[in-house]
Amino acid sequence: MTVATKQQSVYFFGNKNAEGQRGMREILGGKGANLAEMVNLGIPVPPGFTISTEECARYYECDQSLSESVVNQMKSAIAQVEQSLGKTFGDTNNPLLFSVRSGARVSMPGMMDTVLNLGLNDQTVVGLANKSQSARFAWDSYRRFIQMYGNVVLGLDHHQFELILEKKKQAVGVELDTDLSEQDLQDLVAQFKAYMAQEGTAFPQDPMAQLIASVGAVFKSWRSNRAYKYRAINQIPDEWGTAVNVQAMVFGNLGDTSGTGVCFTRNPSTGENVFYGEYLVNAQGEDVVAGIRTPEPISSLEALMPAPYNELVEIYKHLETHYKDMQDMEFTIEEGTLYILQTRSGKRTAAAAVKIAVDMVNEGLIDSKQALLRIDPNQIDQLLHPNLDPSAQITVLAKGLPASPGAAVGQIVLTADEAEQRHENGQKVILVRTETSPEDIGGMHAAEGILTARGGMTSHAAVVARGMGKPCVAGCSDVQIDLDKGEVSIGGQVYQDNDYITLDGSAGNVIAGEVPLVETELSGDFETVMNWADEVRRMKVRTNAETPHDVQVARNFGAEGIGLCRTEHMFFQADRIKVVREMILAESDSERQAALDKLFPVQKEDFKQIFDVMDGLPVTVRLLDPPLHEFLPHDDQQIEQLAQEIGKSVAQIKQKLSQLHELNPMLGHRGCRLAISFPEICEMQARAIMQAAVECQQAGKVVIPEIMVPLVGVKQELAFLKDRIKSVCDDVIAQSGQPVQYLIGTMIETPRAALVAAQIAEDAQFFSFGTNDLTQMTYGLSRDDSGQFLPSYVEKGIYAADPFQTLDQNGVGQLIEMAMKNGKATRDDLKIGICGEHGGDPASIVFCERHNFDYVSCSPYRVPVARLVAAQSVLESA
Amino acid sequence: MTVATKQQSVYFFGNKNAEGQRGMREILGGKGANLAEMVNLGIPVPPGFTISTEECARYYECDQSLSESVVNQMKSAIAQVEQSLGKTFGDTNNPLLFSVRSGARVSMPGMMDTVLNLGLNDQTVVGLANKSQSARFAWDSYRRFIQMYGNVVLGLDHHQFELILEKKKQAVGVELDTDLSEQDLQDLVAQFKAYMAQEGTAFPQDPMAQLIASVGAVFKSWRSNRAYKYRAINQIPDEWGTAVNVQAMVFGNLGDTSGTGVCFTRNPSTGENVFYGEYLVNAQGEDVVAGIRTPEPISSLEALMPAPYNELVEIYKHLETHYKDMQDMEFTIEEGTLYILQTRSGKRTAAAAVKIAVDMVNEGLIDSKQALLRIDPNQIDQLLHPNLDPSAQITVLAKGLPASPGAAVGQIVLTADEAEQRHENGQKVILVRTETSPEDIGGMHAAEGILTARGGMTSHAAVVARGMGKPCVAGCSDVQIDLDKGEVSIGGQVYQDNDYITLDGSAGNVIAGEVPLVETELSGDFETVMNWADEVRRMKVRTNAETPHDVQVARNFGAEGIGLCRTEHMFFQADRIKVVREMILAESDSERQAALDKLFPVQKEDFKQIFDVMDGLPVTVRLLDPPLHEFLPHDDQQIEQLAQEIGKSVAQIKQKLSQLHELNPMLGHRGCRLAISFPEICEMQARAIMQAAVECQQAGKVVIPEIMVPLVGVKQELAFLKDRIKSVCDDVIAQSGQPVQYLIGTMIETPRAALVAAQIAEDAQFFSFGTNDLTQMTYGLSRDDSGQFLPSYVEKGIYAADPFQTLDQNGVGQLIEMAMKNGKATRDDLKIGICGEHGGDPASIVFCERHNFDYVSCSPYRVPVARLVAAQSVLESA
Repeated sequence: MTVATKQQSVYFFGNKNAEGQRGMREILGGKGANLAEMVNLGIPVPPGFTISTEECARYYECDQSLSESVVNQMKSAIAQVEQSLGKTFGDTNNPLLFSVRSGARVSMPGMMDTVLNLGLNDQTVVGLANKSQSARFAWDSYRRFIQMYGNVVLGLDHHQFELILEKKKQAVGVELDTDLSEQDLQDLVAQFKAYMAQEGTAFPQDPMAQLIASVGAVFKSWRSNRAYKYRAINQIPDEWGTAVNVQAMVFGNLGDTSGTGVCFTRNPSTGENVFYGEYLVNAQGEDVVAGIRTPEPISSLEALMPAPYNELVEIYKHLETHYKDMQDMEFTIEEGTLYILQTRSGKRTAAAAVKIAVDMVNEGLIDSKQALLRIDPNQIDQLLHPNLDPSAQITVLAKGLPASPGAAVGQIVLTADEAEQRHENGQKVILVRTETSPEDIGGMHAAEGILTARGGMTSHAAVVARGMGKPCVAGCSDVQIDLDKGEVSIGGQVYQDNDYITLDGSAGNVIAGEVPLVETELSGDFETVMNWADEVRRMKVRTNAETPHDVQVARNFGAEGIGLCRTEHMFFQADRIKVVREMILAESDSERQAALDKLFPVQKEDFKQIFDVMDGLPVTVRLLDPPLHEFLPHDDQQIEQLAQEIGKSVAQIKQKLSQLHELNPMLGHRGCRLAISFPEICEMQARAIMQAAVECQQAGKVVIPEIMVPLVGVKQELAFLKDRIKSVCDDVIAQSGQPVQYLIGTMIETPRAALVAAQIAEDAQFFSFGTNDLTQMTYGLSRDDSGQFLPSYVEKGIYAADPFQTLDQNGVGQLIEMAMKNGKATRDDLKIGICGEHGGDPASIVFCERHNFDYVSCSPYRVPVARLVAAQSVLESA
Repeated sequence: MTVATKQQSVYFFGNKNAEGQRGMREILGGKGANLAEMVNLGIPVPPGFTISTEECARYYECDQSLSESVVNQMKSAIAQVEQSLGKTFGDTNNPLLFSVRSGARVSMPGMMDTVLNLGLNDQTVVGLANKSQSARFAWDSYRRFIQMYGNVVLGLDHHQFELILEKKKQAVGVELDTDLSEQDLQDLVAQFKAYMAQEGTAFPQDPMAQLIASVGAVFKSWRSNRAYKYRAINQIPDEWGTAVNVQAMVFGNLGDTSGTGVCFTRNPSTGENVFYGEYLVNAQGEDVVAGIRTPEPISSLEALMPAPYNELVEIYKHLETHYKDMQDMEFTIEEGTLYILQTRSGKRTAAAAVKIAVDMVNEGLIDSKQALLRIDPNQIDQLLHPNLDPSAQITVLAKGLPASPGAAVGQIVLTADEAEQRHENGQKVILVRTETSPEDIGGMHAAEGILTARGGMTSHAAVVARGMGKPCVAGCSDVQIDLDKGEVSIGGQVYQDNDYITLDGSAGNVIAGEVPLVETELSGDFETVMNWADEVRRMKVRTNAETPHDVQVARNFGAEGIGLCRTEHMFFQADRIKVVREMILAESDSERQAALDKLFPVQKEDFKQIFDVMDGLPVTVRLLDPPLHEFLPHDDQQIEQLAQEIGKSVAQIKQKLSQLHELNPMLGHRGCRLAISFPEICEMQARAIMQAAVECQQAGKVVIPEIMVPLVGVKQELAFLKDRIKSVCDDVIAQSGQPVQYLIGTMIETPRAALVAAQIAEDAQFFSFGTNDLTQMTYGLSRDDSGQFLPSYVEKGIYAADPFQTLDQNGVGQLIEMAMKNGKATRDDLKIGICGEHGGDPASIVFCERHNFDYVSCSPYRVPVARLVAAQSVLESA
């Protein structure tokens, strides 16, 4: 590329004066913006420069090369760094070395590549040896750099380097890397270079060439598979790109007055307001993060290196006050001098997020509205998920670090791939690994919980698990894995792949077998936060539930009604499925009516229980939705049994099955189509709802039933059924003399319903968007069948996100907007809700708030999440 | 109802002066408007009045009763009729009698009810006997009236009346109704009345009460099942309603100077410009239409009753010149005096329609544009459908009337219901009936052709079959049906239900077995009409075809390119399905590539053949669309065979089958999703298309390939594939040095594609609306599964029409409009077409013209229909 770009692409920081600041996250990435900010605050940061995120896109546009302009800007920035430190890049006496790190707009820990010790070559290594007065250190740094460069920049297999290293250790008879001598390391450097040459990829001696290639490698790592996968899971747009931070190296491995660590301004696991962290003496930063050596708690640093420790304490307080949020910092002490390498808003468990938010309000640092915005709603449901039943007898097999709270039960699985596979097959698994690496991200997401044999509280496994809200026990040294045998030894006992274990991530316990779990409750700080949310939010939050248990859980979590009661779930219960089948197999109207007469009292009791719990709140009941064949048995034995039970022949049942068979049941004889074919089913349900309402009201409850007709596509469907439902309801009311206020409305779940909403609203008092089916039909995509290609679609960036997880605002959203606008034009007071699974998805809830929905409805455990997001979206739009 | 409606609901006609005229069809119905028009023209029409279509809707709104205002208006009109005829309604000396008939905006022959001889009671029957000097006639009229009233108005089973009549004939030992004496008829009247009383429904003696009830009965018959069905088939809106015509009775059964008949101003079967019709002496009109007695040809009337005949000839000429269209008239001669009871535009075969249109242009009666509008496009394809292969040896079993032209082959079926069922099962059937009635309408629609034992050229079977464009042989007296045995004797030979026969409707022949049929060609008058159409129309007409035969047929029919070439159809051919299966079952990329390498030359040859025929015209090739499992065998034997053939194990194939199995294949891994998962398939196809284009161009042809990506829902899908297709195509072009102009575009067949068309158009050079799938997804309705309830939906009026037959302009149409508008906003020159089956449906083609489509594409046999409609819609919008 010869076309020079004129704009600024490189931003220097150092000398207490940076070209960037914290507000420039989009251009500098999170790390770069915060490095600049710290420099401006006067905090000791090794000088360097940031190459902007815009260059990432440009790098790909320009055939993966940096423009001349960028290279020139880099050279100027290098000169500034050289001036500020009095060292020179590539100098043989006092060489300046760089680290090269990624830094996206939001943190993607471990997902992209890093190169350290850059600038070393056969000459500068001698300079470093002289300057550091440790030839061994210099050659070890050079050895590490070549290894990293070979792997990250040149794409060679890092196992090959490890193999050469391993052979060397065997040859000289040592066990640890640190026992290798200067000469050994020199040999290794030579061997590494030989290996690279043999692979046709020579190691470049020119530091500037090293730097340009390394910057490119970091840009490239934005598009690695694991980075795509991470972004897909975390819904980070691919087009953001990463910045690259080039920073002067400081060394934590220059002896016992050096060290490196990671610390948090508060406890990221509990939220407790104490300084929290870990460090290793005489180590480089990667050693802490990789979890290979188990580090010391930060409190012990005070005794070891009081001056840097005290400075660190002062800095952490400064940073937290400055950012008004809990910070996650990396530091290095080089021969007694403290450097801060990074600060960022610290990842935390949901419990910690809640506690920190409430504490900071109490401390006067932030107000309750800011506090609400501080809590990541995607995490919240870890607070609501089960813990160990306190009354259960448990056998603790081993203890590790309580790396991420909550309890999980599952079958042991030893590789990430298998975890993903078995999860897809519906199994609950616990991923057990010696240590995890970014390649394991998919398997961690699929697992119920994670157990590692090595690594600390800030190891990869711990950080990622907390972010995902998965229970994790880390660094459990009593765990030994034998991948070949498919076994794991835990506390001396051997378990097979597939055996059940239980993790208690809050206590760090690994427990034998399947321990019963119990639900948690809203209380304490969490309740405080929820109350703040309720004060702020406008939208109601309802739940999708039909069993008395789920209905009660939802109400306890603050649900303000039921947005979707799926009556067919009631039909599947053992005591009534037989009657349902009788109804389906009826060969005359009278036979069918007889079965319906048996179902009526059962349905009525169901509704009474629900109305009872939801006293005073609206309950939306959806009429029977699935195609009838879903209620019939399909295997021969069950068919035979059913035939005997209800006095039909096997042939009759099979004939019915074949008659009801559908090629595309999703688009078949279901929803309101069933009710139109068999109005007597719909009338039985309407009668049961209204009779239950009458009886509950007579018992002093307040009942607000909303009867919902599914799968409407044309106005006439709803009109036809509305007449019948209304006539049944009014009949029940008239007979009882008990007035009941009720609504009749419809789900908007076919694209056509959205398109002709103006007409449908003539007969509907409410619309509830059934975004699951609406998404399926708008995309022409069956959720059940999309597994074959949907992951690869997300990976290839064809879908920005799984549209079943988060609402497709661009396409499906248009239909929703249209339906709302036209529906309301027909009927001013049309009530609008959503009852697809998107009702519990934060981004989708924001969409609903923006469009002035009356309510969202979600699964019981998502109710608090929805309450929080409903509040946040009001605050954000203000 | 006590609220009087002020507006005019009743329109008198008579005394050469009518309140209506021909332009008032919407209010008076077709029959009423034409009666008024004839009165105004001075043509002898029995006086009467029309109750407007608006009263039909009001009748249902008012709990099925007539308002006081309407009844009062009827009474005034009756007074006018009385005055004009000098008879009085209900008078015991000279009673005025009425016929009460339906009359909708368009003719629905036989679908609604009629009451004749109204006004007779125990007193007036004596007056009629005196006045007509025939007591037998009077009592026979009374007997008929009671019978009709009992059935039509009171809803009693007409078989019960027939039973009583039959018993009477046995008791007195006569065979024909006409042999019954006055006394027998008096007895029958008494017996009928007794039967009605016994059923709790007394026969009313008050003529006004009779009239009010009969008008109501006609309104009610608008909503009879058969009327609903007829409207659904003919796409007549339910809300139009029918008018009711109340007209003074005239009698064709007053002896040998009386008669009644039906005539056409030209031959409705051939279009020949000769007076054409049939009559019966001494009969009432219903006797002709019902086809019970076989009538005489109209030409023989001249000798029998010269004066009325000459008057009739004068009138028919007057009417045809006045209406400038072929007329279908009903007349009655009462004791030598001619009355015209009805005139309307005559139903005709497609051949007749074409001939009449061309003749009338030549005669200077109309111009070519009017001629184009005269031809019903729904009929046209009967001209294009097969006739008997002239070289075939045939055995004529029996001869009947050539009631509707064309040839049909099918299995004998003896009831309409069974015809419908077996048609749904994919069988081709010939409906064989003694005579047909309006109840048979569904079965007639389902049959390939119709054969009746009784009835003339204007019998129900003949009229309906011509309207539907079905071959029909009527009045074939050598046919005797034994329903109980499921047999039919044809010309003395016994055939079973299920045996094959062939009908030649043009010759009136019933032929043994399955005779091979041959295609027809465009020629003569039809070609003239098509040329007129081509001069007028704006839209291009393409075809959906992929076999060389179909492509050639379409080009002969005037197709101007291919709008949809479904490449998968090529994959199913016996010689290549094996290779396709190898490709699907490949276990490595190299195995798959090997299979693709075998497919490439085959595909290339396919495309060469198509390009060859379509020399100079665009050819849109759709990439592979169906899910892969559709190409694999599913039954055990075939799987075993395949395993042997391609050297895989049965288990491997079954595993693949289970892996590919989908719950909703319509919404599954198909279309562009396949191409994204297996880009090598798409690349092979692109290469085959372009290589074929290059080779054809080198051979001197002009090739315009348009590559179409199916099932796109998001922009990225198309962008991803466009890059790959373009790179393959440009590579082929570069290698060959042969420039080929090609387009890359997409089907718009998911609702989402329509919603985000602006983005998709960035990568698409054309949009082709795949309205089959677009309809399925917009409604959430699987065409394959909708059979269970779609007919009842249409019957219940929930769908105005089958949305797979005629485009849902209200819902799906909105998506199309949106996609066009937004797509064109992105890309000015975006080419727009339609390739769903709607591309051959007249109403849908009108929609496309209105929206300025560039082309429609339809099956080869629909091409002339589309050419005609494209022209008509230009004329209509002008």
